Amino acid sequence: MRRLFNKIRKNSRSQEDGIFFEKITKILGFQPNELKYYKKAFTHRSANKLDEKGNPFNYERLEFLGDAMLGSVIAAHLYNEVPSGDEGYLTKMRSKIVSREHLNELGRDFNLVSFVESKVNSSQFGENIHGNLFEAFIGAIYLDKGFTYCEKFIQNKIIKQYVDIAKLEGKVISYKSLIIEWCQKEKAPFAFDFIEDNGQEGQKYFSVKLSINNKIIAKARATSKKKAEEKAAQRAYFVFQEKISNK
Amino acid sequence: MRRLFNKIRKNSRSQEDGIFFEKITKILGFQPNELKYYKKAFTHRSANKLDEKGNPFNYERLEFLGDAMLGSVIAAHLYNEVPSGDEGYLTKMRSKIVSREHLNELGRDFNLVSFVESKVNSSQFGENIHGNLFEAFIGAIYLDKGFTYCEKFIQNKIIKQYVDIAKLEGKVISYKSLIIEWCQKEKAPFAFDFIEDNGQEGQKYFSVKLSINNKIIAKARATSKKKAEEKAAQRAYFVFQEKISNK
Repeated sequence: MRRLFNKIRKNSRSQEDGIFFEKITKILGFQPNELKYYKKAFTHRSANKLDEKGNPFNYERLEFLGDAMLGSVIAAHLYNEVPSGDEGYLTKMRSKIVSREHLNELGRDFNLVSFVESKVNSSQFGENIHGNLFEAFIGAIYLDKGFTYCEKFIQNKIIKQYVDIAKLEGKVISYKSLIIEWCQKEKAPFAFDFIEDNGQEGQKYFSVKLSINNKIIAKARATSKKKAEEKAAQRAYFVFQEKISNK
Repeated sequence: MRRLFNKIRKNSRSQEDGIFFEKITKILGFQPNELKYYKKAFTHRSANKLDEKGNPFNYERLEFLGDAMLGSVIAAHLYNEVPSGDEGYLTKMRSKIVSREHLNELGRDFNLVSFVESKVNSSQFGENIHGNLFEAFIGAIYLDKGFTYCEKFIQNKIIKQYVDIAKLEGKVISYKSLIIEWCQKEKAPFAFDFIEDNGQEGQKYFSVKLSINNKIIAKARATSKKKAEEKAAQRAYFVFQEKISNK
């Protein structure tokens, strides 16, 4: 009877791991090797877990590791992207990119908090848990797959989607206002159309279509209306930039 | 005539590069791919050089990159080596390892200042140039060979030789005094014998042999008598530790 029970428990655990594996793969954009690192990245201190050697098993040490990896990948990106920026500029831009606010936004957008194993209610976590989980997740990627994959994840999922040097430099404050101004100047009608959805991940999302001259120019999806609008406007801006430079 | 002159200049440049290549290979422990990164790492702002795009060509931006790479390699090392250390501990230990003082010591030991191209006299550089050059050198390794080689260099040339967690934690203040105490307790005669040499690198070195019971136990070489003694004592300490644990 106990053996049967163990077997059932083992199978149900595997199934659970299977779902976790799929979800992590979707976020990463590649398959993880070992789930244990990601499990650690989502284990809250309050779960009071210990590893096989009796050391605390939670994500706090992984935050330290992830923060360092993120710092070096962003440093290399800025070094290569902005050859005219001096040391002071590079340092300032990096701190904007890895600001607490920005890390919280990233963690929230990936809805990492939905994976957390904890003994306290999620309402008690506070705002910074999103950024902390995000850092820990980066640490887990490094331990699981090495620096190259860690860099790949940061490049594809963060830098390409979130890091806009012109905006960080304050040259572009808002792509939305840039687009609106341009439409008004060109006397072109424009509209932002929203659809709200709950996604598979249990996090509320807003999808937006930006039409100019009654033609859909860009689509975007984000966790707030404002962010979705800004993303769509940024994409539209890049579309028009190409058109302008091809003239 | 001009073609002959160019040919001679090209050959003499190649020879110069050949010597530089040999010296860099010796420091790295592996062959570099492209010398240009290392040349940049040793170009002082005062040389007023520009790259082909008109951007300043000197080591200052490389310091930013090297600092980030060093930070992440040390973070990963500490994470793995000290599984019981919490986030605060890991942060504190890392700042001890990458302290300005320690970086200056590393730059000085590799005698990086001997490679510097500058228009000001080296006496005007100030103490921190050693650490700055060391950071820039790490940045050059990353650009030339990638993260894995960067990590390899830091592991072999820095962590193995300079990073002693017990000492950083303040558990061992001085291996020399530890050895002397132990010898006095065991009533074993001991001696530190020095040889001063100038090395091929133009930097003064001190070699020391530590004998206990009239038997040479450990040898070491460093840029000061004190450092050489301490290194030899540390090696002797590890010899005895093994003996004790094999009893």
